[in-house]
Amino acid sequence: MTDPLLAVNNPTALVELLHRRGETVATAESLTAGLLAATLAGVPGVSAVLRGGLVVYSSELKVALAKVDAAVLAAHGAVSEAVAAQLAVGAAEVCGASWGIGVTGVAGPASQEGHPPGTVFVGISGQVDGGHPAVRKLLLTGDRWAVRSNTVATAIGMLQDLLNGNRWRGP
Amino acid sequence: MTDPLLAVNNPTALVELLHRRGETVATAESLTAGLLAATLAGVPGVSAVLRGGLVVYSSELKVALAKVDAAVLAAHGAVSEAVAAQLAVGAAEVCGASWGIGVTGVAGPASQEGHPPGTVFVGISGQVDGGHPAVRKLLLTGDRWAVRSNTVATAIGMLQDLLNGNRWRGP
Repeated sequence: MTDPLLAVNNPTALVELLHRRGETVATAESLTAGLLAATLAGVPGVSAVLRGGLVVYSSELKVALAKVDAAVLAAHGAVSEAVAAQLAVGAAEVCGASWGIGVTGVAGPASQEGHPPGTVFVGISGQVDGGHPAVRKLLLTGDRWAVRSNTVATAIGMLQDLLNGNRWRGP
Repeated sequence: MTDPLLAVNNPTALVELLHRRGETVATAESLTAGLLAATLAGVPGVSAVLRGGLVVYSSELKVALAKVDAAVLAAHGAVSEAVAAQLAVGAAEVCGASWGIGVTGVAGPASQEGHPPGTVFVGISGQVDGGHPAVRKLLLTGDRWAVRSNTVATAIGMLQDLLNGNRWRGP
C-alpha cells in the first residue's frame, strides 16, 4: 500500500537531513493532532530522529502537556503566534529533542476565536536566532483535510529550510 | 480534498458514539506515532471528544510521558501486552479522558525485539472489566503503511465494540 502521507508531504529528505546531523525532532500539534508526527514516522528508520510528540487538542493540555503559559494562552488565544512559539519550545523540551515544531490553527469548517478556517501558525524551536523560535503565519484555503495536510507540508519544509540555512523571511 | 484517513478508517461512528455518551478519548501511540489521533481529528466537531494524545516513539518517552513502568518495559519489552495496557491507562490519566487507547508494535521493515513486522498490541482503558485494560494482539501483514493503518482501524473498531457492549473475545 502507498503511504498517502509520504506521497503528499515528502518527509524523507528532512528525516535524512536530521539523521546526517545527528539531531532529533519532536512535535506539539493542535489542529493537525498527530498528523505531522505520523507523517515523519512513515519514513523507515525514523526512530533515530523522531523522539515523539504531544497532541494537544484541548486548551488544558496545551498548558499541562506542552507547558504553554496559561496567561499567554488567555491573552493571545490558542490560535496565535505566541502559542505556536511556546508549543515548539515545549515539544523540544518535554520530549528532549534538538528541534521542536508547534502547530496551532483553525482546520474548519467553523471559525475559532474570530479566525477563519485556514488560519495557522507554525513554530520551530531549536538553534534558531539564539534560541528564539521562528514562527510563520499561514492563510490556507480548502477543506479541513487540505488545511491540515498543507500545515504538515509547510512545517516539514520550514524545518528543512532552517536546517539548510535558508531562514524564512516572512509572508 | 478527500481525507485519506477518514476514507480508510471511518472514525465518524466512534466520534458520534462518544459524543452521544458525553465521553472523551486520548491516545498513546508508538508505531502509529499520531496516526490514530490524527484520524479521529478528521471528523468535524471532534474537539468535544478528543482530548489529545502522546506520541511515544522512544522508550524514554513511554516512561516519561505515558507513565509506563520502566521495570515492566525492561521485563516485557516495548512490543508487549503489558506495555500496551499501560499506554492505554497512561493516555487516559495524563490527558484526563474517559477512555485511553495505547498502541505499540512493529511497523517494519525491520523486526524489533525478536517480533516480526506486523506484531501489534492495542490496549484500551476505561470502564472495562472494573478498570482493567482490554488488550488485543494483532498479527498484521503488508508494508509499513498497511501495518500502521490497519492498527488504527482495529483500535477504532475495538473501542466502538467495547462501547457497544460487545466485548472482544480473543484472536
